[in-house]
Amino acid sequence: MAGELARAAVVGTGLIGGSLLLRLRDAGLDVTGWDPDPETRGRVRERGVVVADTVEDAVAGRDVVFLCGPLPTLPATLARVAAVTDDRCVLTDVGSVKAEVSTVATVQGLGHRFVPGHPMAGADRAGPDAAEPGLLDGAAWVLCPGPTGLDAFRRLAALLVDVFHARVVPMSAPEHDGAAALASHVPHVLAGALAGTVHRSALRDAVLTLAAGSFSDGTRVAGGPPERTANMLLGNRDRVLAELDALGVFLGELTEALRAGDADALAERLAEGRQTRSTLRAREFTAHRREFPCAADHVGELAYLRELGAAGGHLTGVREAGGAVTYTGHLPATPPLG
Amino acid sequence: MAGELARAAVVGTGLIGGSLLLRLRDAGLDVTGWDPDPETRGRVRERGVVVADTVEDAVAGRDVVFLCGPLPTLPATLARVAAVTDDRCVLTDVGSVKAEVSTVATVQGLGHRFVPGHPMAGADRAGPDAAEPGLLDGAAWVLCPGPTGLDAFRRLAALLVDVFHARVVPMSAPEHDGAAALASHVPHVLAGALAGTVHRSALRDAVLTLAAGSFSDGTRVAGGPPERTANMLLGNRDRVLAELDALGVFLGELTEALRAGDADALAERLAEGRQTRSTLRAREFTAHRREFPCAADHVGELAYLRELGAAGGHLTGVREAGGAVTYTGHLPATPPLG
Repeated sequence: MAGELARAAVVGTGLIGGSLLLRLRDAGLDVTGWDPDPETRGRVRERGVVVADTVEDAVAGRDVVFLCGPLPTLPATLARVAAVTDDRCVLTDVGSVKAEVSTVATVQGLGHRFVPGHPMAGADRAGPDAAEPGLLDGAAWVLCPGPTGLDAFRRLAALLVDVFHARVVPMSAPEHDGAAALASHVPHVLAGALAGTVHRSALRDAVLTLAAGSFSDGTRVAGGPPERTANMLLGNRDRVLAELDALGVFLGELTEALRAGDADALAERLAEGRQTRSTLRAREFTAHRREFPCAADHVGELAYLRELGAAGGHLTGVREAGGAVTYTGHLPATPPLG
Repeated sequence: MAGELARAAVVGTGLIGGSLLLRLRDAGLDVTGWDPDPETRGRVRERGVVVADTVEDAVAGRDVVFLCGPLPTLPATLARVAAVTDDRCVLTDVGSVKAEVSTVATVQGLGHRFVPGHPMAGADRAGPDAAEPGLLDGAAWVLCPGPTGLDAFRRLAALLVDVFHARVVPMSAPEHDGAAALASHVPHVLAGALAGTVHRSALRDAVLTLAAGSFSDGTRVAGGPPERTANMLLGNRDRVLAELDALGVFLGELTEALRAGDADALAERLAEGRQTRSTLRAREFTAHRREFPCAADHVGELAYLRELGAAGGHLTGVREAGGAVTYTGHLPATPPLG
């Protein structure tokens, strides 16, 4: 399948785009990069990758283009890239918020070939020098197939499984944004708040000396670029605010139990959190196959895909043959007790 | 120096106590363990360590005893161990809160030989099977020397440097509890709140599928035993509540900037947190030596030690010779700009 998308381009070659580019190159694809920053282009070229001087040169004649620039630039870049690529060329992005760019693409008439994407991987660094080909290997990679874009979805998902061994998580864009608010955006807010509180504390020096696991882990993503994190949060503002409210309720319960000196109530709330960790650590999946005719109206296929993602499942195989597509899907098994 | 404390005992052989025991044994000390739970005693014996059947048998004739049981048990265990050990025997604990046990020891007339301690290391597991000899190697290890306990402090600090390559952080007990509230206790509350919010969320399955670095790191310590965490928080209740208030202020500022769609204000707050991460990552220390006469009134020595810890410093050497004690101290260098 990946052979179908043998000519690739990556637009925006920072941490994520640069890592993508290096892995696609290592996998033997014909891949070209481009970045608006001449210095970044130079640094990526130093790593032995082909980098064009204009975005048009980078994407012309390509089968697939990954848009990896900052969130606020995506609508304009999408239009620019769409204008100079073939109507069969699959377009995708790697932004951390999906509803807005998905709507923009539909409005631009690109719903049949733009597949919103979000690989769940990153680092607290940024820029092309932090890029490494293994960064996205084995990641959960959200793709948001739309009703007219299933053909593009299948081709892109097959490439991601093939090259990145991705666990492809199909979701609607709003579902992604709802889940990502808790899985990523709120954790970034908490990390920033904790690290920022220490920054303002009179005890800062002593706190940093005692900072071991819980503090160091809990603030790691606060080391990322503030503008990148701000864009992410603003791009999913309503969902993040709603989940911050939910978190505030839980935090309030913990605080009140502590204030009241109620050890049982405190341990009960903490036990709820421990269940999440146990589930996360011990998750098991059951595999299945599902086949759909390629030429059907896609309603059943789309429903299957979105239900899979919403239920915590993912795909590790997408195969088109004989007029049918076969998915290898995985669903969480009944969670272990206790 | 460690030769002075060649006979050791560890009371309470779970994660921390068991790890201590294994490392002391590997370092060649004559060490005996004890735990109130017969099954735990059996498991530790299976790892080739001497374990006594009663706490009295474990500690009798020892030079140093580490109290590693749960926080609420420490006052009773301290009295029991003190009653059957020599007045030269150094006593210490590894609890995550220090002011209460420090006061208890003073009231029990043990200020000259009980040195409150807290190694800044741990894991999200518990029990003797999670113990490993390397767990505490190189850790920041807080010790709280009191005005009458400097002799015991010196001997214990020398042992910790020698056997664990510890960075010994001398602090008063209240200073420790203030710094630990932000460095460890509040991060535990946040991890619990985040993991608990997901536990209650209708999107839980999808959230767990997307859970990558920020969520996984930020909730790691929520996997620990709820009772242990509850005891820790309750033991430092007022400081934790005060720091939760400070965190609430910062979180409120981030939330308001997000609600207002104010990208600049949001990025400015996030930049404060990023400074903390930069400092944590790039901290450099300058070394120095300080000598004090062993027989003096200790006022200057105690002031030096507490100032060192409060300023973010630590000790990597404690040497007594010729009636003087020489400390090798490290203080944070001027932080790098930006």
